[in-house]
Amino acid sequence: MPSMRIALAQVNPVVGDIPGNAAAVRRWTRQAADAGAQLVAFPEMMLTGYPIEDLVFRQSFVASSQAAVKQLAADLAADGLGDVAVVVGYVDADGPAPTSADAVPGSGPRDASALLLGGEVAATYFKHHLPNYGVFDEDRYFEPGDTLTVVRFGEADIALTVCEDLWQAGGPFAAARRAGVQLVVSINASPYELDKDDVRLPLLQRRAAEAGATVAYVNMIGGQDELVFDGDSMIVTAGGELLTRAAQFSEELLIHDVELATGASAATLPPPATSAEAPQGEERGADDMDIARVTVAAAPRPYADGPAVGGIAERVTDEAEIWSALTLGLRDYVEKNGFRSVVLGLSGGIDSAVVAAIAVDAVGPERVVGVSMPSGYSSDHSRDDAADLAKRTGLDYRTEPIQPMVDTFLANMSLSGLAVENLQARVRGVILMALSNQEGHLVLTTGNKSELAVGYSTLYGDSVGGFNPLKDVPKTLVWRLANWRNADAARRGGEPPIPQNSITKPPSAELRPGQVDTDSLPDYDVLDAILGGYIDGDQGRDQLIAAGHDTALVDRVLRMVDIAEYKRRQSAPGTKISSKAFGRDRRLPITNRFREGSV
Amino acid sequence: MPSMRIALAQVNPVVGDIPGNAAAVRRWTRQAADAGAQLVAFPEMMLTGYPIEDLVFRQSFVASSQAAVKQLAADLAADGLGDVAVVVGYVDADGPAPTSADAVPGSGPRDASALLLGGEVAATYFKHHLPNYGVFDEDRYFEPGDTLTVVRFGEADIALTVCEDLWQAGGPFAAARRAGVQLVVSINASPYELDKDDVRLPLLQRRAAEAGATVAYVNMIGGQDELVFDGDSMIVTAGGELLTRAAQFSEELLIHDVELATGASAATLPPPATSAEAPQGEERGADDMDIARVTVAAAPRPYADGPAVGGIAERVTDEAEIWSALTLGLRDYVEKNGFRSVVLGLSGGIDSAVVAAIAVDAVGPERVVGVSMPSGYSSDHSRDDAADLAKRTGLDYRTEPIQPMVDTFLANMSLSGLAVENLQARVRGVILMALSNQEGHLVLTTGNKSELAVGYSTLYGDSVGGFNPLKDVPKTLVWRLANWRNADAARRGGEPPIPQNSITKPPSAELRPGQVDTDSLPDYDVLDAILGGYIDGDQGRDQLIAAGHDTALVDRVLRMVDIAEYKRRQSAPGTKISSKAFGRDRRLPITNRFREGSV
Repeated sequence: MPSMRIALAQVNPVVGDIPGNAAAVRRWTRQAADAGAQLVAFPEMMLTGYPIEDLVFRQSFVASSQAAVKQLAADLAADGLGDVAVVVGYVDADGPAPTSADAVPGSGPRDASALLLGGEVAATYFKHHLPNYGVFDEDRYFEPGDTLTVVRFGEADIALTVCEDLWQAGGPFAAARRAGVQLVVSINASPYELDKDDVRLPLLQRRAAEAGATVAYVNMIGGQDELVFDGDSMIVTAGGELLTRAAQFSEELLIHDVELATGASAATLPPPATSAEAPQGEERGADDMDIARVTVAAAPRPYADGPAVGGIAERVTDEAEIWSALTLGLRDYVEKNGFRSVVLGLSGGIDSAVVAAIAVDAVGPERVVGVSMPSGYSSDHSRDDAADLAKRTGLDYRTEPIQPMVDTFLANMSLSGLAVENLQARVRGVILMALSNQEGHLVLTTGNKSELAVGYSTLYGDSVGGFNPLKDVPKTLVWRLANWRNADAARRGGEPPIPQNSITKPPSAELRPGQVDTDSLPDYDVLDAILGGYIDGDQGRDQLIAAGHDTALVDRVLRMVDIAEYKRRQSAPGTKISSKAFGRDRRLPITNRFREGSV
Repeated sequence: MPSMRIALAQVNPVVGDIPGNAAAVRRWTRQAADAGAQLVAFPEMMLTGYPIEDLVFRQSFVASSQAAVKQLAADLAADGLGDVAVVVGYVDADGPAPTSADAVPGSGPRDASALLLGGEVAATYFKHHLPNYGVFDEDRYFEPGDTLTVVRFGEADIALTVCEDLWQAGGPFAAARRAGVQLVVSINASPYELDKDDVRLPLLQRRAAEAGATVAYVNMIGGQDELVFDGDSMIVTAGGELLTRAAQFSEELLIHDVELATGASAATLPPPATSAEAPQGEERGADDMDIARVTVAAAPRPYADGPAVGGIAERVTDEAEIWSALTLGLRDYVEKNGFRSVVLGLSGGIDSAVVAAIAVDAVGPERVVGVSMPSGYSSDHSRDDAADLAKRTGLDYRTEPIQPMVDTFLANMSLSGLAVENLQARVRGVILMALSNQEGHLVLTTGNKSELAVGYSTLYGDSVGGFNPLKDVPKTLVWRLANWRNADAARRGGEPPIPQNSITKPPSAELRPGQVDTDSLPDYDVLDAILGGYIDGDQGRDQLIAAGHDTALVDRVLRMVDIAEYKRRQSAPGTKISSKAFGRDRRLPITNRFREGSV
């Protein structure tokens, strides 16, 4: 059986940086070729980054992508890499977007995969299954492809597929079986969600069995606004064997020699996975794709050294995985947007402590400014805990008391109650934004998902900031992450970054004397259970009550969530880690009189 | 030829208020029946409001809609209205949404039209063409229907269709021709855009010719977050004659007697409109819909009085139309969200003057608070112009000087340059939000579309607010609207609300001595022309330069637009009036290194 040395380039493109992304392809291909790779696969939309959203409607953007893929093929040949098959994602089109007035069916933008060889674009494939759920809007942007591209490269027939093609039975993988391919190259831009990696391997095993072929899966890494991509690239045989698997959240060139059976055909293959093996709800596309065969003249370049073995990266705990997601998400928001540093308010509480620890891990303590902004209501332990955090992490610590400004507002306006509480939060917001304007920091906001859900924050106060690392992290998970991060530091012989007192003391906004969160909210374990059902699970009032939650509490929490939509609409972006994050993942009207249980 | 008295109920539902919307159907049906109407048509999604967005994923919501439509049929009969055919939109489903893990194809949510008669849901139809462009995400939410429902009611065959069905050739209207119907009832939730009303009549004429039948088109009115619906309901014959047409932006029961040819069939009809008559780019769906025929037992209720003639509302100017859109959009945001009053900062400039005038027209001067917040840099004319505006409109005028607070910040922090400019805007933001918290007002923000495009605003400063009436209004149009509103007042013998000085003086943020907008920006007529091409037209750099714009200026403006995306992401909602508004209509990444002309 002949073998092929495959390199999966699990790399980090930048949306819109077409020249930079093309340069990265050349750099990684050089490295792969030096290790003897015959085929190098890059992620979906490698040249453009992903998701490009409405940039696809600008013809200048699509034309740049099209020009870049041709230029890249020529540049690779000029680099002496013309005999390496390079599979790379980009956006292609013959005409305007499908929703344009000038659209011609079949000519709009395509989510495309190209195989570059011999200085040319030797073959192209257009993504067949377009996701239009969750954070995805691909029906808005792309026309689906209806033809599976099969490339004869040396002795192997290789099918090209893109991302969502993998998530449905039928379609490209069924066509790949009909075409008798030995290898399916699946290029991906698959955003991270907790537990998604647990789904990927069995999914790949089902598709590999369906295709009767080895599947090489490459996913990008990196942060892009609210999304973070986790990599987790791997190769799985038709028989379901996991040959190699990359770690999550880091750039990596995963190189592995794969044996490819020749002469396989649908007739000699084992039967495909039956629908009974697929999880409930896995959709099945129609098996009606055409097959286009492309034969390339070049033979795979020979390699002389011994077998390449990519290895199988160890799985990590949920907390470690989430910490990596949040750290990478923040780091890439900072770096890709060109910020030198970040600033955040340090209250001594758990949320700001965890955000500070994430920031320090993401960009280093010398690029993190923490500001304690005590008021007359701030307890001594708040200041002490903030200072302790600063000492543990080594961040740039400052103090800006708010009382003089608060007092001036109060002397000039007649305010009471909630207005005074919010005023304190807003003076802090003004201070952080002034530091940002004066010194160029990105402001981090620290509201967790539970607070965002029930609106327990001050708009333009503690919510100010360009990025929110905890946006999709419920309060109970914030505590779990804090404990994990400290324990992990201790395990590695380092300093636990988060003061134990910030973890154990009762949470308080400290906007009036003796205030604690439980004055306004139920205990967070109770709250998060209700929020998980209502928000992540789309459960209604009756389902939540049937699940054992207190009726009056359910009514109160649902009402709080519903009326806080206007605050969320103006909230900073933050990394999605759950199956349903606030933002593009959950789109609700602000004006909405529906109240669960009212009909 | 028999005739039918048709009532088009151009009404204003509220998203989520299913009981309230059902009550409105009963109330308007009673009124229509009193006027002898035999068939009353309500808008798309009348029972739920539109758009319901991710509410459709909550089964409790869909179940409420389904229960309500059955209950409504029974209630209408109990009201003695069981012999009136009532066509009403709602959401229907047999199972979870198409993207759910538990989805069963063909059972997900439908954008449905029901014909209620005799106490029952006599017929249902499911929208065939689902829009997934612009502000629409209907592929995310609904499964398309594939069957045209034709109801035999008395001597007439009536086809039911929903909104987007009208915007494409083929599909339901071609099926209606095959079915030989005399009437197509088209229920709509068609959001306002400038000039859309100019498109509707020719569109209806093409579809009526295609169906070979009279088309009765009813559209909702009202504001819903960033959308406003303009009504413009009408009836057009197969021959293209406009029988009756409602005004825009107001509730109205448009009642008209329509003659319906009997015994028509495709063979005896004139040929349908050829594709040459359709505008470029009008899509053509496949003519493969099934036809389901329903015969209802009840005959149309007789009416005795003379012919009902709905009349044809006069068209108004663009400025009048936009003013109505902005006024209704704001009024409904205020009313549907339960605010008693609004507050805004009055700078003496044109933007805040126009927003104040819109607010006064929307909710009355006694519910509008205008706050002058002078600084040391505020000119005398700013204060005078703000006071003059207050006097002209009768709004509640207050003064809150910002200098004491600004000085306290400056005494406690070391700030300079832009940080000091932004500080002033943020102190004003804190004052407005404090008034909102203390007194319960909705804060209006006043940034126009040109400012939002280039980021010429202070985040958490002048951008604070829950709603922005000018969000989709370019600066040059703000001036046109001001001139129109004043002239219109003069025409009607009233007081022009906007001080002439606010219109004529050079715009300035007054954040440093002698500052004018043209220090940082080109003249607004030049700027708006570039922005219109880049944003509304998706034109690239080369197209803009080819259109005659200065190269360096194009580069500068495009760069400003690109890097301001993070500000727009946190901006308040505001009424869409253009073909591409900021918000759900235009979805761009924040992290985006694409620079026009860089490749």
